This record gives sequence, structure tokens and C-alpha cells, in this order.
Amino acid sequence: MKDTEIKFWEETGLNIIRQVEEAVEPLIGTRKSGEIVKIGADGTPTTLIDVVAEKKVVDALEELERPVFLISEEIGEVKIGKDPPEAILVVDPLDGTSNAIKKIPAYGISIAIAQSSASSQETANLQDVGMGLVKNFATGDLYSGFKGYGAFLNGEKIGSSLIDDVSRSSVGAYIYRGDMNRLEPLCKTVRRMRTLGAVAIEISYVADGTYDAFVDMRDNLRVVDVAAAKIIVEESGGVVTDRHSRTLDARLGVLEKTSLIASGNEKLHGDIMGILGGI
Amino acid sequence: MKDTEIKFWEETGLNIIRQVEEAVEPLIGTRKSGEIVKIGADGTPTTLIDVVAEKKVVDALEELERPVFLISEEIGEVKIGKDPPEAILVVDPLDGTSNAIKKIPAYGISIAIAQSSASSQETANLQDVGMGLVKNFATGDLYSGFKGYGAFLNGEKIGSSLIDDVSRSSVGAYIYRGDMNRLEPLCKTVRRMRTLGAVAIEISYVADGTYDAFVDMRDNLRVVDVAAAKIIVEESGGVVTDRHSRTLDARLGVLEKTSLIASGNEKLHGDIMGILGGI
Repeated sequence: MKDTEIKFWEETGLNIIRQVEEAVEPLIGTRKSGEIVKIGADGTPTTLIDVVAEKKVVDALEELERPVFLISEEIGEVKIGKDPPEAILVVDPLDGTSNAIKKIPAYGISIAIAQSSASSQETANLQDVGMGLVKNFATGDLYSGFKGYGAFLNGEKIGSSLIDDVSRSSVGAYIYRGDMNRLEPLCKTVRRMRTLGAVAIEISYVADGTYDAFVDMRDNLRVVDVAAAKIIVEESGGVVTDRHSRTLDARLGVLEKTSLIASGNEKLHGDIMGILGGI
Repeated sequence: MKDTEIKFWEETGLNIIRQVEEAVEPLIGTRKSGEIVKIGADGTPTTLIDVVAEKKVVDALEELERPVFLISEEIGEVKIGKDPPEAILVVDPLDGTSNAIKKIPAYGISIAIAQSSASSQETANLQDVGMGLVKNFATGDLYSGFKGYGAFLNGEKIGSSLIDDVSRSSVGAYIYRGDMNRLEPLCKTVRRMRTLGAVAIEISYVADGTYDAFVDMRDNLRVVDVAAAKIIVEESGGVVTDRHSRTLDARLGVLEKTSLIASGNEKLHGDIMGILGGI
């Protein structure tokens, strides 16, 4: 992206974030927010607060003067404005929905932006993302990453952890049903485990060393969950792969899924992959 | 406790909380806060922010006109003021220390208060606690419980979860090394797992249904971690036992340890105990 384009799309992203945050704020911690209102484009139940959040994203993009291709959890994949789209926005309007409903302080929004050409929305993948924005509404913390320009927390440049000894590391992990066996050897080795239940925020935690690493072995992470946080971690100096040590290059699509291991540095990443038995 | 005594000790507790919160606030998220400065009375490393927090507790109690017996993580067990102490205070000056250091938004203070007579500091146990206060400094949320008077969140009466189906439950768990095998059957059954890493706050989450249950199987939870949250959950209508379904009645002492299962209701508690194989 050119500098003027970066500025424009960052402003667009921040504007969406402001509008979504305002819209969901009165619903946080309320019973009403968790009512299931439909089944989303990805096949999972959609709560009222998810719908409110996504509607704001669509509204904000419809007001925009420039055409975009939106990929979002509930609505799926839609063109907004005239052809051809100038950018692809990959959005999780509400990361950590169940935390927002219970007022556990880790919930927010994830927006990734890739530039687009006439055909690219068919072929663009995670490697094409040029910018990521992840905000935790509960704390106000905004993580951002810009390809080639670094990663930032609330505007201040950040770097990932230099801890390269697994036994000293604090690791976030998605603990869910079948995962336990796979994660057990890692849990036995690390210093600390956390599971906050807000994947985009927790992956971003690797970008400023809040976590030394984050692990999700499920092959069930959606591209909309990880698109922004991946570039934020990479731009901070961290390493992101799937559980087979492969580059994350899933197509930008609402049904695309992946596993993800993000680490503060190469040495730690290699050690974690070794412990998890990833090949 | 008589009503006038409850009022006095609640005010005392709230005053300690205010002073500790003010003192630690500038240290949150700083590298300096995590420097190890000594080994505490319980044998674990003590960070700078732990010392700052506990010093404020001691200072506040020394200014008090009434003698107390203080049990706290780093200082151990000390008499403050003339004999005999009028109350026993069981304090974790900073619950979730590593979160405070990393600015993960779950850290705060836990204060339990039991009335005391000449000999009772030798024999008092968790069943004698009359009042518990737990505050998450990151969110401002204050949980409180008063024996016979109920449990409260920011002054509003709260009740524990009525969800009695484990497969629909959100459960907090301390995941740590050897625990994985024990917890696996539960992880495979529940709807959601969380590990925030702030035990007093997470046990208190059971009191207002933020969590349906909290599980720590380690036999390594300190009495100072659980003394306040236990009464908060019990007064909310929830159930608290150790992993053998026994009443928690450990002596109020800095080296005393226990396991803990807290659930929103009897049915859920029984089902969780069954899944964990507790006898």
C-alpha cells in the first residue's frame, strides 16, 4: 500500500472501530446481548450483540465513498459499492462474544485490510493483508500492524518477547475439548497458561510480549479471527505458522480455517513446535 | 458479627483496598513491577509490586485504632496493635500478580475478615470468615459477601448460576502442569474453559454467574487466595468444597493449602465432582 492509502484505510478502520464500540457498549454484560437471533454465514449461532456489531461495520462501509469487498463472520462475503473493490476488509466485528456477554474484560474487534484488484478477491490470501487493527474494548488497548512499518500498541511501537526458554514462557492457548491431549506436553513445560477466550486479542498479546506465545491446535480458527493479529505479530518481530510450521496462507474467505502458533521469536517457536510434535 | 461491627470492618477493608489500588496503579504493566525482591513467607518469589501492595495493607492496619491479626502472603502472620486482636484479616494484597505485571486485565485484592477472641487466631478456620471483599482493579468491579446477608457486586445483590447442565457451562480452571490429566474429562464436557490467572477474582466470578463453576485441583491453593471468595460464592447461593467434596475448613494460616471446586448450584457441583472422579 502507498502511504496515502495506508492513512486512508487506517482512518476507515478506526472509524468502524469507534462506531462498533459505541453500538455494543450498552449491551456489554446484559442477558439480552446473548440472545441467539440466527445462524451466521460460518454456521455458528449468532447472538444479538454479534448482529449489532456487524450491522455497524456494514453501515460504516456503505457510507464510505470507495467500494470494498467485506468478509465478516455473520454476513459472509459481500461487495459494498461499485466494482471493482479497492480493498478487501476481513472483519470479526466482535472477538470474544461470550466474554462481552459476561463482561469478562477481553472482547473487541479485529479488522484486516488488503488492497484489491478486479480479480483479487477470488485469490487473495492471508499473506496479502497489508494492515491489521485489533482493539480490546474492555481495556481500550488498540494493537495495529502495517506491512513493512512495524506494530504498535496505542500508537507506540512494540516488539515481541525475547524469552526463548519455554519453561519461562507465558503462553495463551485455546483449550477446547479434543485439544487437551495435544496441548498436554506444552502445558507441562511452560511457566504459565492463559485462556481468555478472545483469539484476536490473545494473538495480539504476542506482539508486545504480554504473551510469549499463543497456541491454537484445532484447525478450526477462522481466517476472520486471525487475519489482523497475524500481521500485527509478524510486524512486531514475532513468528506465525500453522501447527505444521507452514506459512499461514489460507484464502481470505469466511469459511476458511487454520491452526495457529504465534511466538515472540524463532527459537521459542521452534521449541514449542518440537514439544507439540508439529511437522 | 454484629451489624455495627460489619459496617466498621467493611469500611476498614474498603479503605485498605483504596490505598493498595492507588499504590500499585503506577506500577501496572511496567517491567520494574516484576522485579523479584525477596522470597515470601509462603516460600514463593516476591515481586516489587507484591511488596508495595502488602506494605500498604500493613500501613493501613497500623493506623487503625483497633488491634488485628494479619495473615498475608509475604509477611506471614503478624499481630498489629495490642492484644487481644479484635479481628483476623486474611489478605492477598495482589491477586493475579503476573497479570498486573503484564497488564492482563484480571488483577486485584482479596480480603477476608473473621472476628477474633484471645485464642482464636490459633484455631480459626475458613468457616469462621464473616466477610469477604475481592476487587478487580483492572475493571473496578468489587465483589463482597457477608455471612447471612448475601453477596454483592458493586453494591448490587447477586446470585450464582442456575445452569445445571455441565455441557452448557462456562468453567474457569487453574491449568498447571500436572493438572491436565485430572482436568481432561471436564474440559471435554464443558461448553467453555477460561484461565485468567487471578484465583480470587475467578472464584468470585461464580457468585454472579460470570462463570458457572471454578475448579482448582492442585491441593496448592493458599488460604489467603480463597478465604474471601469462598464466602462470596456461598452467600450468592453457590457451593464450595475441596476436590473430595469436603467443606473447606483449613486453618487460617499463611502456609495452609487446599483444592477448591466452586459451582453455581448443587446439581452442577455434583455433576462436576462426578466427572472429576472426586470422592
